[in-house]
Amino acid sequence: MIKKFFKSVIPETTLRRMVYYTRCLNSFKNEGVKLIQSEDIAKKCGVKSSVVRKDLSYFGEFGVRGKGYHVESLLSTINGITNTFGKMNAALIGVGKLGSAIIKHSTENFNVKIIAAFDKDRKKVNKEIGETKVYPIEEIESIIKKYKIKIAIIAIPPSDVQKIVDILVNAGIKAILSLALIPLNVPDDVEVSFVDVLSEVEFLFYKLSLRRNI
Amino acid sequence: MIKKFFKSVIPETTLRRMVYYTRCLNSFKNEGVKLIQSEDIAKKCGVKSSVVRKDLSYFGEFGVRGKGYHVESLLSTINGITNTFGKMNAALIGVGKLGSAIIKHSTENFNVKIIAAFDKDRKKVNKEIGETKVYPIEEIESIIKKYKIKIAIIAIPPSDVQKIVDILVNAGIKAILSLALIPLNVPDDVEVSFVDVLSEVEFLFYKLSLRRNI
Repeated sequence: MIKKFFKSVIPETTLRRMVYYTRCLNSFKNEGVKLIQSEDIAKKCGVKSSVVRKDLSYFGEFGVRGKGYHVESLLSTINGITNTFGKMNAALIGVGKLGSAIIKHSTENFNVKIIAAFDKDRKKVNKEIGETKVYPIEEIESIIKKYKIKIAIIAIPPSDVQKIVDILVNAGIKAILSLALIPLNVPDDVEVSFVDVLSEVEFLFYKLSLRRNI
Repeated sequence: MIKKFFKSVIPETTLRRMVYYTRCLNSFKNEGVKLIQSEDIAKKCGVKSSVVRKDLSYFGEFGVRGKGYHVESLLSTINGITNTFGKMNAALIGVGKLGSAIIKHSTENFNVKIIAAFDKDRKKVNKEIGETKVYPIEEIESIIKKYKIKIAIIAIPPSDVQKIVDILVNAGIKAILSLALIPLNVPDDVEVSFVDVLSEVEFLFYKLSLRRNI
């Protein structure tokens, strides 16, 4: 099953939904649900059941015809696959309100550990937030190399982002999550993702406005 | 052009990218760029140029054949369309680190204004963050009705989310942005969107792991 997983080209949208399915399955598990249909996952996750079946098929043959999926075994298979990936270290740049909120919530996170944070404010450095140590911004390159950090989360003002991105890429970062929706210049082998609350609010506004006007 | 805009069914992925294009175009404008090709937008936004052309075509006939797009007029046409939508009021539930960071950054936001925030912590209520007043959580329904708020941003612990969602929906909220990626039960006419930093980090982790293993 794992072999199949590695060999097939899994679409990005599927990968993104897998994160969500895992949360839904955990939610079913906590409710004591043992057996589910793709329709149940679909309803809980707000996607079509055909999409759920197609997505899960990338990861192997899970369902029992006519019976559905065993919640626990589906979860442990998915976890089993991601466990073969090992763990990854992440860094957080910018220990403002947003940055420290992220570190505070990151203990739940399973596969990725934010082991280092960076800030230019001298009052914040050399402290620890949970298990994450805060370093001065000048040490980004050395710490990232030292701990072989591959993922970086950027939570700093937009004007400073590209400068930091260049340093991160030079230090060996291969995936960047930016919390400001502004264009970034990175080499082709660096993944970039954006999470921007206000852009998402704007998107909802567009959706509601169109609905009202159609 | 506006007529066409309202009558065509614009895909969700296009709408989401429009928010991003607007930011890219503003970035071009700030750099003093006057005329651009769809390839320039594509490169800056990290999408294919055929996608850019298709997306923009939903909003009318913008490009001048062989010449490209005028940055300013493209921006002002897009803004002109969204201006016809009017403005919308939004509410924020949960004035923790994350919530207050959102309010702090929301002044840039053009079409949506976070006019009310809610928290159960008595020490936080009746204060103002920027122009946003913080109300006690018990007043959600009355304030949302009073100010005809249609969009809500939820930044509270996952265990309390569904309870709050029910209250919001009853009060007339039509779009919810949740900052925790957990399933929500809402009626069909309520839009739901998620922004979850740690899920996005997990997604990047999946992507890097797959790349390494293929």
